[in-house]
Amino acid sequence: MGKYAIGVDFGTESGRAVLVDVADGRELVTSVYRYANGVIDEKLPGTDVRLEPDWALQDPNDYVETFKQTIPAILAESGVDLADVIGIGIDFTACTMLPTTADGTPLCFLPEWRENPHAWVKLWKHHAAQPEADKINEVARQMSQAWLERYGGKISSEWFFSKVLQILDEAPEVYDASDRLIEAADWVVWQLCGEEKRNACTAGYKAIWSKADGFPAREYFAALDPRLADVVDAKMSRQVYALGERAGGLTAQAAGWTGLREGTAVAIANVDAHVTVPAATVVEPGRMVMIMGTSICHMVLGEEPKVVEGMCGVVEDGIIPGLFGFEAGQSGVGDIFAWFVDHGVPPEYHVLARERGIDLHRLLEEEAAKLKPGESGLLALDWWNGNRSVLVDVDLTGVLLGMTLATTAPQIYRALIEATAFGTRVIVEAFESGGVAVEELVAAGGLPEKNKLLMQIYADVTGREIKVVASAQAPALGSAMHGAVAAGRRAGGYDTIAEAAQKMAHLKEETFRPVAGHNAVYDQLYAEYVRLYDYFGRGQNDVMKTLKRIKAESWGAGS
Amino acid sequence: MGKYAIGVDFGTESGRAVLVDVADGRELVTSVYRYANGVIDEKLPGTDVRLEPDWALQDPNDYVETFKQTIPAILAESGVDLADVIGIGIDFTACTMLPTTADGTPLCFLPEWRENPHAWVKLWKHHAAQPEADKINEVARQMSQAWLERYGGKISSEWFFSKVLQILDEAPEVYDASDRLIEAADWVVWQLCGEEKRNACTAGYKAIWSKADGFPAREYFAALDPRLADVVDAKMSRQVYALGERAGGLTAQAAGWTGLREGTAVAIANVDAHVTVPAATVVEPGRMVMIMGTSICHMVLGEEPKVVEGMCGVVEDGIIPGLFGFEAGQSGVGDIFAWFVDHGVPPEYHVLARERGIDLHRLLEEEAAKLKPGESGLLALDWWNGNRSVLVDVDLTGVLLGMTLATTAPQIYRALIEATAFGTRVIVEAFESGGVAVEELVAAGGLPEKNKLLMQIYADVTGREIKVVASAQAPALGSAMHGAVAAGRRAGGYDTIAEAAQKMAHLKEETFRPVAGHNAVYDQLYAEYVRLYDYFGRGQNDVMKTLKRIKAESWGAGS
Repeated sequence: MGKYAIGVDFGTESGRAVLVDVADGRELVTSVYRYANGVIDEKLPGTDVRLEPDWALQDPNDYVETFKQTIPAILAESGVDLADVIGIGIDFTACTMLPTTADGTPLCFLPEWRENPHAWVKLWKHHAAQPEADKINEVARQMSQAWLERYGGKISSEWFFSKVLQILDEAPEVYDASDRLIEAADWVVWQLCGEEKRNACTAGYKAIWSKADGFPAREYFAALDPRLADVVDAKMSRQVYALGERAGGLTAQAAGWTGLREGTAVAIANVDAHVTVPAATVVEPGRMVMIMGTSICHMVLGEEPKVVEGMCGVVEDGIIPGLFGFEAGQSGVGDIFAWFVDHGVPPEYHVLARERGIDLHRLLEEEAAKLKPGESGLLALDWWNGNRSVLVDVDLTGVLLGMTLATTAPQIYRALIEATAFGTRVIVEAFESGGVAVEELVAAGGLPEKNKLLMQIYADVTGREIKVVASAQAPALGSAMHGAVAAGRRAGGYDTIAEAAQKMAHLKEETFRPVAGHNAVYDQLYAEYVRLYDYFGRGQNDVMKTLKRIKAESWGAGS
Repeated sequence: MGKYAIGVDFGTESGRAVLVDVADGRELVTSVYRYANGVIDEKLPGTDVRLEPDWALQDPNDYVETFKQTIPAILAESGVDLADVIGIGIDFTACTMLPTTADGTPLCFLPEWRENPHAWVKLWKHHAAQPEADKINEVARQMSQAWLERYGGKISSEWFFSKVLQILDEAPEVYDASDRLIEAADWVVWQLCGEEKRNACTAGYKAIWSKADGFPAREYFAALDPRLADVVDAKMSRQVYALGERAGGLTAQAAGWTGLREGTAVAIANVDAHVTVPAATVVEPGRMVMIMGTSICHMVLGEEPKVVEGMCGVVEDGIIPGLFGFEAGQSGVGDIFAWFVDHGVPPEYHVLARERGIDLHRLLEEEAAKLKPGESGLLALDWWNGNRSVLVDVDLTGVLLGMTLATTAPQIYRALIEATAFGTRVIVEAFESGGVAVEELVAAGGLPEKNKLLMQIYADVTGREIKVVASAQAPALGSAMHGAVAAGRRAGGYDTIAEAAQKMAHLKEETFRPVAGHNAVYDQLYAEYVRLYDYFGRGQNDVMKTLKRIKAESWGAGS
């Protein structure tokens, strides 16, 4: 008789629960709950309070509702014996955070705070805290904070303290009323097991925590704002738990929501991207996981801390306990292709795709696949959404070079794919030259399913074999794996995430290997890419920033 | 009672005759004949002989037919007294040349040569003589030929001796059988007046002739090919006539074709672009004429010979007798916009243009006109078709820079217009720094009629007022003006082209003046354009050539 674990993946628009066989990782049943309030970016629900641009909030009730809707559904559909469901794990977007009272009640649940936007959940893509991020970085540089280099030299406006500082700046009354400031990932675990236990992943990657040094010093926070000096001790916690640990057992209330047995093991929370790494079979150094969608997250493990140019973060135990987890990223990948499909493709291809009943991306992929490497004479810099790794510069913009009167849309589509592949190669080479080995690539996310040409180009450009995660819902699988580890071997689970990965995580048979001959051409194109990358990205020619400045001035100049 | 002159403009697809009032330049009647054999680029008419890529031929019978069809038509429609038609002038595309017998019979009219492509007219855009042009340039450099700098350091594959040498290389029997090698412009004048009289414009701009030095020396031709040593004396002529001179009187045969009176004055031939200059009222230094269409020709007059970087040519008496005529050019302008409209505009704009019943260019112009200078954050290098002036490099390619996920098609359309305006400003500045004044711009051609935004941007970017030629068929008007000068004052015409221009040439009331404020923004953008221009165009980064090499190798590599 089997044992089962449940993984719950909290995404941007919906939450998803998957029931997984602990023995082999087989995904039995899935249920998705679309958040009633979704992404709140115009008006606070049930109020007339309008939000400013760049705001993105959520309603924590949607998270509770995810448990209530999805878990009973998968239990009912699967018909498994509740006694065989040994553990539950969750993963979340991050940094997605909220202010609560001491007992964990979100401030936005309280009538007196309901009309204050700062009382709600700030979603990962809330981008209104840039001034605060700028200040965090400026003060860190002034005070020579050693932790800055763990984050590629820059703290993002999306991260925890940027959002906290925005609350303090704009709504000090909310800051004062917040007994706890907490990642939503940790908040939902608290709702399940009644205990506030914070995870090492969000603490490390989003809240400047490290196992060796803890959080930044009180003096640093005081320099940011005197009222922030004691934020960690007053509103957070210095106790940070390793991934896969048991946070506690399901409370009676949570058992009532879900239909699971009281006391069922609940794992410490995780982050969607990071939990994908063990779900991609990667629990050791040398194999980079790429989560490929609108953007790419690159994750790789190492035995030692290393400084890698422009990485998003390095966190000890941040992905797999016992190892350093390195994260890097490309800020625009799938969204560049989507931009092109929306803004750069003439009607004939739209018509053809419609006639053939296929997606326009698919048609362009087919046409682009007929081209040989280098055949179009085009080269692009994939900076439509800035450059995260390794330049960490949001003000960089896209370049397309080599057009003639014979250039076609499929040629441009392929050049854009190639540019993002070159961008990944820069990151791979940055890791390797920083002493972090990258021997093999493992792909997860939506793009590997959708675009085989893209995968082949990435293999050709990087000169590395690319394997593909078997699961189409790898984060939920990874969360279920952590649920099985929280339950432990004696309950029918596993003692470590490495053991869980060995049994529960799988790759597809199909892999992408570099094609002989292609790599040689791409080496030449890559050399040209790097030359342009350095020229435009490292200050030799700041034309992109100059154009942005002129653009800003033109807006300021009136019509 | 009025006097009239006829201008006949031989274009690429058709010939056009216009009857013009000599007193004031009023265009009374126009007739167009579409060449029966058009541009011959696939198969020789009436044969199974296929042409190689890059070939472009014409049938000289179409030129004769133009006279036969159009002139009787305009005479009939206007009802003017034949005695009042005092002269006829013609202009032609160039270099468009053909081999003939001693009496002017085109070789392709003779049955024994009809199936040999080299016996036909080589049209200006016949591009199959690049190896010969390369040799012409290489030998000229080796022999330090002083004339090379009059042509921006490079003789084009389109020009006279490139085409002659191709005949010699590939069909020496045609070369041997050719008693005369002649510009089509001069050939049609020969057909009208029975005399072979060659014009200074094509001799100077296309056949390396100058008033001071004549043609290149015999030794130079011998070095190209010993069989070519005596080409000038054997198959051409050292007698070159000034523009506006009387070539002769209409023969009885030509009078029969046209319905005009025998002996009617025929002017020395001219070139379409160059004859537009006096038709644009320009007969003195300081005012640059821009003939704006798929490409731009820039023409300006000077008192002295000057070396200007990358100009197409400087010819004494080449445009207006008594002055040096300078020509420069941009190889891609309207055809870049056409490429974009065909290859880069998504369906929504096509649909909108259709709904509104307007051309897509017009719609994009409207949308682009809503943007302020610098507002899009985009910058382009307008090298889709290489760069003629000032870099003289066909291997350069286009660049678009500054794209974000919010970039739209009208923004790109505007950036492409701006890039071509920056390209013109580079040429203007090259002339001025070479000592050739450019105080005002006068626009002719199709674009000024079609795109007022473009005209305004050119004014803003160059910081100069732009006037526009009144006539929509300026070359034919210019030819008629030369017909009036060939007739002379005593016959009711004029003694000089300057006098003719004063009476017969007109500008529109509407002009384009730089908008205060725009020029300052464009100065900043232009500085960035020039920096990229120099970086990619002057050897600092030869990525465009590298990409072309890789592209060529990829074609060679098989599939």
